[in-house]
Amino acid sequence: MHNEFKPLTPKFPKFVHGGDYNPDQWLDHPEILEEDIKLMKEAHCNCMSIGIFAWATLEPEEGVYRFEWLDSVIDNLYNNGIYTVLATPSGARPHWMAKKYPEVLRVGPNRVRNLFGKRHNHCYTSPIYREKVWQINTKLAQRYSNHPGVILWHLSNEYSGDCHCELCQKAFREYLKDKYKTLDNLNKAWWTSFWSHTYTDWSQIESPAPHGEDIVHGMNLDWNRFVTHQTSDFIKWEAKAVKSVNPDIPTTINMMMYFDGLNYQVIKDDIDVISWDAYPKWHHVGDETQVASEFAMYHDLMRSLKDRPFMLMESTPSMTNWQEVSKLKRPGMHLLSSLQAVAHGSNSVQYFQWRKSRGSSEKLHGAVVDHYGKSDTRVFRDVRDVGIALEKLQCLYDSNVKAKVALIFDVENAWGVNDSQGPRNCGVKYKETVLAHYRALWELGVSVDIIDMTCDLSKYSVVIAPMVYMLRDGFSDRVKKFVSDGGSFVMTYWSGIVNETDLCFLGGMPGEMMDVMGIRSEEIDSLYDGETNCIVKCGEAPDTMKEKYTASELCDLIHCITAKPLYTYGEDFYAGMAALTENDFGKGKSYYIASRNEPAFQKDFYRELLKRTDVEPNFKGELPYGVTVGKRVGDKDYLFVQNYTKNEQTLTLDREYTDILSGEKYAGTLSLKPYDVKVII
Amino acid sequence: MHNEFKPLTPKFPKFVHGGDYNPDQWLDHPEILEEDIKLMKEAHCNCMSIGIFAWATLEPEEGVYRFEWLDSVIDNLYNNGIYTVLATPSGARPHWMAKKYPEVLRVGPNRVRNLFGKRHNHCYTSPIYREKVWQINTKLAQRYSNHPGVILWHLSNEYSGDCHCELCQKAFREYLKDKYKTLDNLNKAWWTSFWSHTYTDWSQIESPAPHGEDIVHGMNLDWNRFVTHQTSDFIKWEAKAVKSVNPDIPTTINMMMYFDGLNYQVIKDDIDVISWDAYPKWHHVGDETQVASEFAMYHDLMRSLKDRPFMLMESTPSMTNWQEVSKLKRPGMHLLSSLQAVAHGSNSVQYFQWRKSRGSSEKLHGAVVDHYGKSDTRVFRDVRDVGIALEKLQCLYDSNVKAKVALIFDVENAWGVNDSQGPRNCGVKYKETVLAHYRALWELGVSVDIIDMTCDLSKYSVVIAPMVYMLRDGFSDRVKKFVSDGGSFVMTYWSGIVNETDLCFLGGMPGEMMDVMGIRSEEIDSLYDGETNCIVKCGEAPDTMKEKYTASELCDLIHCITAKPLYTYGEDFYAGMAALTENDFGKGKSYYIASRNEPAFQKDFYRELLKRTDVEPNFKGELPYGVTVGKRVGDKDYLFVQNYTKNEQTLTLDREYTDILSGEKYAGTLSLKPYDVKVII
Amino acid sequence: MHNEFKPLTPKFPKFVHGGDYNPDQWLDHPEILEEDIKLMKEAHCNCMSIGIFAWATLEPEEGVYRFEWLDSVIDNLYNNGIYTVLATPSGARPHWMAKKYPEVLRVGPNRVRNLFGKRHNHCYTSPIYREKVWQINTKLAQRYSNHPGVILWHLSNEYSGDCHCELCQKAFREYLKDKYKTLDNLNKAWWTSFWSHTYTDWSQIESPAPHGEDIVHGMNLDWNRFVTHQTSDFIKWEAKAVKSVNPDIPTTINMMMYFDGLNYQVIKDDIDVISWDAYPKWHHVGDETQVASEFAMYHDLMRSLKDRPFMLMESTPSMTNWQEVSKLKRPGMHLLSSLQAVAHGSNSVQYFQWRKSRGSSEKLHGAVVDHYGKSDTRVFRDVRDVGIALEKLQCLYDSNVKAKVALIFDVENAWGVNDSQGPRNCGVKYKETVLAHYRALWELGVSVDIIDMTCDLSKYSVVIAPMVYMLRDGFSDRVKKFVSDGGSFVMTYWSGIVNETDLCFLGGMPGEMMDVMGIRSEEIDSLYDGETNCIVKCGEAPDTMKEKYTASELCDLIHCITAKPLYTYGEDFYAGMAALTENDFGKGKSYYIASRNEPAFQKDFYRELLKRTDVEPNFKGELPYGVTVGKRVGDKDYLFVQNYTKNEQTLTLDREYTDILSGEKYAGTLSLKPYDVKVII
Repeated sequence: MHNEFKPLTPKFPKFVHGGDYNPDQWLDHPEILEEDIKLMKEAHCNCMSIGIFAWATLEPEEGVYRFEWLDSVIDNLYNNGIYTVLATPSGARPHWMAKKYPEVLRVGPNRVRNLFGKRHNHCYTSPIYREKVWQINTKLAQRYSNHPGVILWHLSNEYSGDCHCELCQKAFREYLKDKYKTLDNLNKAWWTSFWSHTYTDWSQIESPAPHGEDIVHGMNLDWNRFVTHQTSDFIKWEAKAVKSVNPDIPTTINMMMYFDGLNYQVIKDDIDVISWDAYPKWHHVGDETQVASEFAMYHDLMRSLKDRPFMLMESTPSMTNWQEVSKLKRPGMHLLSSLQAVAHGSNSVQYFQWRKSRGSSEKLHGAVVDHYGKSDTRVFRDVRDVGIALEKLQCLYDSNVKAKVALIFDVENAWGVNDSQGPRNCGVKYKETVLAHYRALWELGVSVDIIDMTCDLSKYSVVIAPMVYMLRDGFSDRVKKFVSDGGSFVMTYWSGIVNETDLCFLGGMPGEMMDVMGIRSEEIDSLYDGETNCIVKCGEAPDTMKEKYTASELCDLIHCITAKPLYTYGEDFYAGMAALTENDFGKGKSYYIASRNEPAFQKDFYRELLKRTDVEPNFKGELPYGVTVGKRVGDKDYLFVQNYTKNEQTLTLDREYTDILSGEKYAGTLSLKPYDVKVII
Repeated sequence: MHNEFKPLTPKFPKFVHGGDYNPDQWLDHPEILEEDIKLMKEAHCNCMSIGIFAWATLEPEEGVYRFEWLDSVIDNLYNNGIYTVLATPSGARPHWMAKKYPEVLRVGPNRVRNLFGKRHNHCYTSPIYREKVWQINTKLAQRYSNHPGVILWHLSNEYSGDCHCELCQKAFREYLKDKYKTLDNLNKAWWTSFWSHTYTDWSQIESPAPHGEDIVHGMNLDWNRFVTHQTSDFIKWEAKAVKSVNPDIPTTINMMMYFDGLNYQVIKDDIDVISWDAYPKWHHVGDETQVASEFAMYHDLMRSLKDRPFMLMESTPSMTNWQEVSKLKRPGMHLLSSLQAVAHGSNSVQYFQWRKSRGSSEKLHGAVVDHYGKSDTRVFRDVRDVGIALEKLQCLYDSNVKAKVALIFDVENAWGVNDSQGPRNCGVKYKETVLAHYRALWELGVSVDIIDMTCDLSKYSVVIAPMVYMLRDGFSDRVKKFVSDGGSFVMTYWSGIVNETDLCFLGGMPGEMMDVMGIRSEEIDSLYDGETNCIVKCGEAPDTMKEKYTASELCDLIHCITAKPLYTYGEDFYAGMAALTENDFGKGKSYYIASRNEPAFQKDFYRELLKRTDVEPNFKGELPYGVTVGKRVGDKDYLFVQNYTKNEQTLTLDREYTDILSGEKYAGTLSLKPYDVKVII
Repeated sequence: MHNEFKPLTPKFPKFVHGGDYNPDQWLDHPEILEEDIKLMKEAHCNCMSIGIFAWATLEPEEGVYRFEWLDSVIDNLYNNGIYTVLATPSGARPHWMAKKYPEVLRVGPNRVRNLFGKRHNHCYTSPIYREKVWQINTKLAQRYSNHPGVILWHLSNEYSGDCHCELCQKAFREYLKDKYKTLDNLNKAWWTSFWSHTYTDWSQIESPAPHGEDIVHGMNLDWNRFVTHQTSDFIKWEAKAVKSVNPDIPTTINMMMYFDGLNYQVIKDDIDVISWDAYPKWHHVGDETQVASEFAMYHDLMRSLKDRPFMLMESTPSMTNWQEVSKLKRPGMHLLSSLQAVAHGSNSVQYFQWRKSRGSSEKLHGAVVDHYGKSDTRVFRDVRDVGIALEKLQCLYDSNVKAKVALIFDVENAWGVNDSQGPRNCGVKYKETVLAHYRALWELGVSVDIIDMTCDLSKYSVVIAPMVYMLRDGFSDRVKKFVSDGGSFVMTYWSGIVNETDLCFLGGMPGEMMDVMGIRSEEIDSLYDGETNCIVKCGEAPDTMKEKYTASELCDLIHCITAKPLYTYGEDFYAGMAALTENDFGKGKSYYIASRNEPAFQKDFYRELLKRTDVEPNFKGELPYGVTVGKRVGDKDYLFVQNYTKNEQTLTLDREYTDILSGEKYAGTLSLKPYDVKVII
């Protein structure tokens, strides 16, 4: 298998269990550092992430380094069987640097330079900051990259944000020159003739500003791309520094959920291992299925980036300190949430953080070890149970998820569709729409890859493209090839509106996709919250689908060219117009969903669609509401049966299974306790 | 008739049908420019507005002009029977100008100069900007103002906004010196002894600022007046430039709805023709009557400015792109909405814009020609139908609306009442109150002029003054003369509180109006949302009115001096105090409405009041809910029967009528389809 | 009695009735100044506060003084039996000063210096401002502090706000050096190792800034303390200036309700007399009890600051102009609200303001004399009635409130708990929680002192400490002594989390309070709005309490060490864990309330608790809902029976009483009209 799991490093081919560890906060408490080792072993932790914000401790004055404490920490851990993920400290610079070299601080969109403060307050362009990062990174690499306990570089922390200083303006202009070559090309791409914005000199270009220009969509898009480009360049610089000493230690960055400030599809190539920080809001009002399916999707996204297992670099063992309401995890939830990550391809469960800080803004964020300091707590026991479970699951370490269905979630499309003033400014809901389609597949227990429009489609049987407003270059060609070759392709309303620089397609929507979809959209109606229309079955729609589904928010008014309608609108002046169409194209079929429909539609439609393909759900049998099954494929199939309800649930089994965690065997039925998880083979 | 319609220009004495046309966005698509001409003719368009944001194309470098493209566009249009409204391009300046002369950019209230960007980002005081505008305007005038196809100057675009640069501060101080002569006068007018704000030198005066002074009401008022003054001065400058070449081409500016940043009653004198941009939010939740009556009122306001027909310079042929939810216009609504404008005095129906831009912030705003590019669309057909209808209505081109009722909506009063911290800071609702009174008259099918407190009252039979918080100089004298001479005058609670510099009247409210109203207000009670009181009939109130109406939000506690109560409060500690009074004054009568009452009160009260005057509704007979009738008077009476409901409606006719649009004759009853409009004689 | 009332000054040992008087706004209306004297006497006013914003009138040019008008005003008042509270004018500086010395203006957190404007726009650190204040204060003192009519210095006005200029930055660093001595101490106290914030030079310290650092809780706390320190220093400077001339005139500052920008427990020592400005929002939706109990608490807080009577320096005789909805005071409310202050220890009823200003931002704020200018108004009559009542109450002038119950409301704790990101960021509700406990005591008619954690506890029988998140230094020792000696101490959830620099306690929560409370908190659950749990009676809970109370929002999960549970949780995974505990400690008892409970819990619990102590309610008998009884103790007990409902209420009396106001005698029952108040002996 091309996407089989290579261990992070031959040094440590095991599930990682650990967390962010900040001994630099406790250097004057040696007894606590000693206690930490004892507690880590008790919690079955085997790895700690160290030094993430330690620059001020490592280099208290310019050029003066203090590594002794870190030597001792890494050695002590290693001598106790605990490995180290070592961070570069660039996520926060020391005071002395900001004072001496103000250019390392960021400038906001209002063109005011920040004062020292917070994290992520540094210019990625500044030559001085890059030089300082190079120095500290190479020092760290020289000292630790050959240490037997150091297994991975954790570059900086949660890269994000932008800077509008003069250095960045210059870099932005260079980036644009490189991309467009001439101002005439740029003017056309950004449609600057609108409102007399034609650039006649490169120096006239300024990044978006609230008191300048911020509604030229093409410019906003390119600024977002530039921010990714510049961050990527910085990450490469960091990686080069540490790899210049020992190229064998792999690198990662900890990515973020919900985050659309960077295009991770670009940045994934700058690092060796994907990792991310997941903070689901469990136990919110209502049931857990929305949060569970959302995080399932994010895990899938992370796995799909490199099509191989990833690391859950941060999660909270207890509660967060930043939610509106911080609920305690109910019994069972910590193991369930942790193994959800593993089910979707994580080969680690790591926490922020090992021990609660005593002060400052995150002191009340959950940690393995509370201010209390001992192990007789509910949270500590929950963590230890996860450690024990991961040890039992070592047998599936070499497995991964295999998906035949791909769902497209494209960050550049998000930039475009969210920035444009469109049919529904109170919320066009791109992310929510992708999630709604994902959720149907999650309820059906189907493995899914989350890709973007630049990815290869050829290995999938089904590709789903909700709201692909902006058609990325080459995407329509790949879709046509995919369908021609026999694939099933699904696309929704509000697709094919603009090209990569946010210029609308001329000649009809969905632009280059009109032929493969066999339809043309004339206009799109928007509904107020609470308003509904409906779609009604017609002609050849599958029997298992309902006669009628509710539609709301967005209703595309389309004309069938070669497609045939499966559903039509039931109400309003466009009653009778096609609302769901099917089109034969080569050996495959394409489906156009014209309206935003109730959840049942997606579930019924995809259940039916999968039947017509070679895609099989992970579990043979009906799944009760709130129960899903994930699958990792290795030497055998490992099923992760997850109950996200607070009630007991029962599944009917097709054969006998064994639960790896408990060793128990099940036949006939499988009973799940509230928030229960079983890994069965 | 003194307010009969003079055609805009002898060149084109016809209803205008057309829109904003931006060929400068398509110069590298000659086939599109060619197609445009063909489609315009197909859509029965006879006029295009050109060059509104074309400065960068017209003068790509300082002093280098490119007119050839514009020559060709204007000639081609004219050769195909399409006239040109030619814009001056000052609504957005080119990049090169902002770069070379930073003073042309605006400074915000925070005293930070804007970067280049957006529209309306230029200082109206800057001598350099004025010089540059003069140059381009005279160049345009020299080249085009004698062209047979050019019929009107469209000065700039949607004038608005202010600037706080040093040049503007200086101009503000000069304006104040001119107005107040001495600092002592200014200090008294602004009551600066409050909080020790006494000015002792003119240089101490600064425009309102969030980090300075912004709650000295008198200063805020004068700043608003200065902004109007300075904008007016700039408009005069623009007009002078183009008229210096050919004084025969009239000028307009496109005004805005809801806009209270400028006093259009001042600015109306700077231009020859009134025009405005109307974007009703049709098909919002609920019924259409609120939107319909609101836009009826704005149309009336625009007509009343010069008491002659105006132009609907912009409207959307489809949907806007800036509403929270952009609903499609339902079948019928485009014609209905367009003819509503004509019913209230517009002699044009024009669109923003002819062809959708491909990029930037308004690319998804509705246009006659979609990105699709062809005429087989619902929107295009709707537009063509309006073009055909306007041609049929040419017979009433020389007519206008004649009103005997005036409703006062005063923008300076709005500035005052909205800025003051008064009895109901969660919403004093001046505009909404004026609208509530207007709506009653709209439902009754009565023609109304919308005027301000500076206007002549003598030609009216009824004058209605809701919430005239600030009594403009001379207003009370004009009212007393009006009533003495036999007029009926209606005033509400929260009137007569302050004078023109927002100083409270001493000696009792409503100040100078106490005698004509015959009452004195002691205090005003405010009610929370959901709280109500009621008013109860007493003594001599008309029989047709209800025993009781609900009151809410504001209840004025008044003492009758010479007035007699018609209604009294029904509840709370002021039960029994007068709530509606009538006062004899000379030959006329005045009415004081003390409380904010439910809509039925206004309708019942005005129906009864009109019976006592010579004012007749436009239609003889009952109007169903949602149906109104407007009237233009020319050689005969033209009735615009409008159905704003989605149901069929029937009217009982007093005689036979003919529908100009269909040619059909009606007797007995007239049946209206949903969103139907008929123009009957 | 150690807290017996010393009259403000031997010159005027009487209840003060008067208000802010701004004759400087009316100097060109001598007839109004004359009318004022007449009306003051008619309103039974005996004192006016003068000169509060008169600097521009007193010193129109630098060094040029105009005192003649003030001489005349003070003389005229005195000659008519009206005394003067004389203000220093530092609350707003004149234009000329800001223009010549920009440093006197404040700099915002964004490091931009304000323009001239508003009040409170001056740097308390600026040497120039201090010098200018010294000059004007000493001039005033020289001229007036020996005048027989001048009885009190009103220093400035409603001190508040901060400044971030370089002078303040420097002062902040000095303050910190003085407090922490070394950077190492400061780094530890602020836990700066978090996010690499370690300071290596004092010059690196900057005050909190939105574009710098604002989430280092320790720094935010110290900035708040510094603002109090610097303001206190300024107040001392002002006081020193006036006292340098005649030390016998006492000083006050007018404090504010709800205000947590300053620590009044520090500032109380800078002045001789406590006074404050109270603006209850009467007649809000719902009943009056919430507002009534809240203002009762604020009055108690003000009295407790110096444990002696205070002054109600400002209140509105009518309505405010800044509420969302400004309701008129219903008949009876003005007297009731004024005597509520007296009941809780005020020896004055004063208004903002005597006569409504004609212009600027407060012109519509209620005043004794309206713009109308005469005395035949409802408001004027209400004011006169209060004046007459105060004269009748002169017999209790030497009395004060005596409380055996103390409730802790600590502003430093508020800073800490509100700033920290904790278990319920949507609202941790510290103030609301203190109020909820206070309200129970108010409903029971019990006198309460409102103190902070630094105050002496030894004189109380019961001390209640809701949400003492931050344990101030020495507090736990004082509590232990208090309980050991036999006191009853009540503490709630979310207590004992951090020390004075916001560092969490290690070893278990509630930190130093674990032994006295006999419990340990392991974690705290947060509930969404609308979610509930309940607490259920167990073991030895008092019979009079209910079987079950609803809990919401915050549920602490605690382990009993020496305490015994009285209630346990009824639901969720922590059902059965202790929710209310009692612990024997020395001769006393401590109670831990683990959850946020419904109001009935507090009332039932405190009723029961008081029965076990020597604390007696002020009234023997049941109080109907909305009726409370306050008590001032002097030569005899004076009971203030207050009815905050709009219905008649009846109390059963234990003996005969006489109403001082009416002279009537009551036996058997006492009947109260709506919004009625009686002072009975």
